[in-house]
Amino acid sequence: MTIITLLSDFGLKDPYVAEMKAVILSICPNATIVDVTHEVDKFDKDMGMFVLASVAPYFPKGTIHVAVIDPGVGSARRSILVEGRRNYYIGPDNGVLIMAAENEGIKHVYNITNRKSISRFVSNTFHGRDIFAYIAAHLAKGLGPIEVGNEIDDYIVPKFGEARIKNKEANCEIIYADEFGNLVTNIHSNNLSRLGLKLGRNIVLEIGENKFNTEFRRTYSEVAKKELLVLIGSHNYLEIAVNQGSAKEMLKINKGDELKLILLD
Amino acid sequence: MTIITLLSDFGLKDPYVAEMKAVILSICPNATIVDVTHEVDKFDKDMGMFVLASVAPYFPKGTIHVAVIDPGVGSARRSILVEGRRNYYIGPDNGVLIMAAENEGIKHVYNITNRKSISRFVSNTFHGRDIFAYIAAHLAKGLGPIEVGNEIDDYIVPKFGEARIKNKEANCEIIYADEFGNLVTNIHSNNLSRLGLKLGRNIVLEIGENKFNTEFRRTYSEVAKKELLVLIGSHNYLEIAVNQGSAKEMLKINKGDELKLILLD
Amino acid sequence: MTIITLLSDFGLKDPYVAEMKAVILSICPNATIVDVTHEVDKFDKDMGMFVLASVAPYFPKGTIHVAVIDPGVGSARRSILVEGRRNYYIGPDNGVLIMAAENEGIKHVYNITNRKSISRFVSNTFHGRDIFAYIAAHLAKGLGPIEVGNEIDDYIVPKFGEARIKNKEANCEIIYADEFGNLVTNIHSNNLSRLGLKLGRNIVLEIGENKFNTEFRRTYSEVAKKELLVLIGSHNYLEIAVNQGSAKEMLKINKGDELKLILLD
Repeated sequence: MTIITLLSDFGLKDPYVAEMKAVILSICPNATIVDVTHEVDKFDKDMGMFVLASVAPYFPKGTIHVAVIDPGVGSARRSILVEGRRNYYIGPDNGVLIMAAENEGIKHVYNITNRKSISRFVSNTFHGRDIFAYIAAHLAKGLGPIEVGNEIDDYIVPKFGEARIKNKEANCEIIYADEFGNLVTNIHSNNLSRLGLKLGRNIVLEIGENKFNTEFRRTYSEVAKKELLVLIGSHNYLEIAVNQGSAKEMLKINKGDELKLILLD
Repeated sequence: MTIITLLSDFGLKDPYVAEMKAVILSICPNATIVDVTHEVDKFDKDMGMFVLASVAPYFPKGTIHVAVIDPGVGSARRSILVEGRRNYYIGPDNGVLIMAAENEGIKHVYNITNRKSISRFVSNTFHGRDIFAYIAAHLAKGLGPIEVGNEIDDYIVPKFGEARIKNKEANCEIIYADEFGNLVTNIHSNNLSRLGLKLGRNIVLEIGENKFNTEFRRTYSEVAKKELLVLIGSHNYLEIAVNQGSAKEMLKINKGDELKLILLD
Repeated sequence: MTIITLLSDFGLKDPYVAEMKAVILSICPNATIVDVTHEVDKFDKDMGMFVLASVAPYFPKGTIHVAVIDPGVGSARRSILVEGRRNYYIGPDNGVLIMAAENEGIKHVYNITNRKSISRFVSNTFHGRDIFAYIAAHLAKGLGPIEVGNEIDDYIVPKFGEARIKNKEANCEIIYADEFGNLVTNIHSNNLSRLGLKLGRNIVLEIGENKFNTEFRRTYSEVAKKELLVLIGSHNYLEIAVNQGSAKEMLKINKGDELKLILLD
């Protein structure tokens, strides 16, 4: 029994997600299909990339991840199958798959060109259904990755904005804002010692002209209700949060915005 | 293993969808349940009908589709089971099932009256749970369609607004607007030759006093970003779209609105 | 094959729900996972409690319910496993599980403290993934409830606002407002005879200064479209509704608001 996950910007109102599931179950009736999310902001490859990279490590080895954030559908952009050390990733060659795959290590990337491995009728607007879901189901049934097309090495690698970290200071970016209003920065937990950040430390967040005083804490409830804090979130990045409230609303910033984080003595 | 699909206007916030799944799994633990959508606009039978008809052909033969857009619940409106050439359809007798079933061909329609085939306690407000899900699960377990009640032939057949198509000109209607803002017209791809429409052709869309110039293209990315186009969408109808944008917002029209499409020389 | 249900205030945009499913399927690949809802209002334990209590009776015996409305995550609040007469309930010790469990009868409540029964790495912010989903999957695989930790009897029991019911009059509260705008009061169907309420009876609803005339009916379609009615809803509580419309919008009240219901002669 194989798990196939689906991630897209389709939303849940239209028939598109169900059509992908129908294609999968027609080919591989005992696949276990898991929705990662279909609420990625329309055409936002970076957001899809981050969500897929967050979730992928928790799935068992051999899981097949299909990600369809695909503004270039029907154009010359390639369709790819990435064979990672643990999982398979299927989607457009626009970077959305690569962060998750690189985290575990990429073994091979295949350009999906073999007409025999895809649906007989391929629409110009919905490769999620006619190519990606179709191949995922056949892969679950035993199709060899090499059978989809030739190996390539010039696939698109997304560029991540790196946080500039010095001792006691970091210029960083919000790379994800969740539905609670928690703001995930691009400072990974691995970089805390370089930054010199320890639990209980006082911090100033500089956002344009505004400054916010806060503290580095272990969890939300260590500060009063509706108060700001900084913590290591469940994605393993430094996160700005408000206990039982929304940091996004309090700080009036969002995904893509930059800020400076300064440690106080 | 049988697939049971669920479509409704219940939304995903309330316990209603989960109650239907609980009823199904209590009767038929190894049913594979697939959500088509639960975000149909409240009470909008036409929208539910279109989504069900779009998705049904992709499911394997023998799939049981349950559709609950049911403003008349608890009234004298009948509950029906439609046996099509490929699939089963269960829901209220208000037309929501018929477009999908007619597309594949209707063999029999049964009026669900046999008390033995439905839940012992039937609420007056939630037949989705107490009748439709219940029967779907029993059907998956081997109940014969004829056992639910007598065959009828006076079930409600929805009327579709037909596009009026002449050479180089069509008066049509928007029958669906998806979450991307793509506008699906009631001009089926089968009617393109009657209309005389070929790829690359220039088109004017007349919407009330406003006129929009556009082209008939194969896919979104063949026009510049944020530019209007007309294409055959994945539902196989002529669709008005904006590359990486929303035609619904640009044209300020929606489901139910009419427009005139004129081919230019 | 065991059913594990998930209920949370996570929404469907973020990777959190999929991470819980990944953890469950990694441990127990053939668990059947059912989403109850993830759209509970953020941090609203009462709403989660009501939805869980509504849905639980429809699931088969042995179902494992995981509910994560958890504003106190990472604090000293305990994690608990409730063994009811029919089902298991796993979540924070903040009352969210107890209404559903009390309805079927509570056999034992365990304080989850045994480190061996939970994930090796436990984040401070996401016990839904690292403890609750983890234990649910192991329970589905045969872990004995007693193995998670010691039995306790001082778990938090939520207080429900009781309706004050006299003959022909009740002071009640809206305990749930669904997506249709139906308003569920805290008058259970068991209390109708005490109130003296019978089908067809005229009723006045007093909400602050405003009064609304209505009737007690069996179902929506017994009154004209867009007209107000009172009925026993599918949750088995007295419900205020509008036929094909929203009582919430018409009466401009919501969850938590109080009103007076007076029977007319």
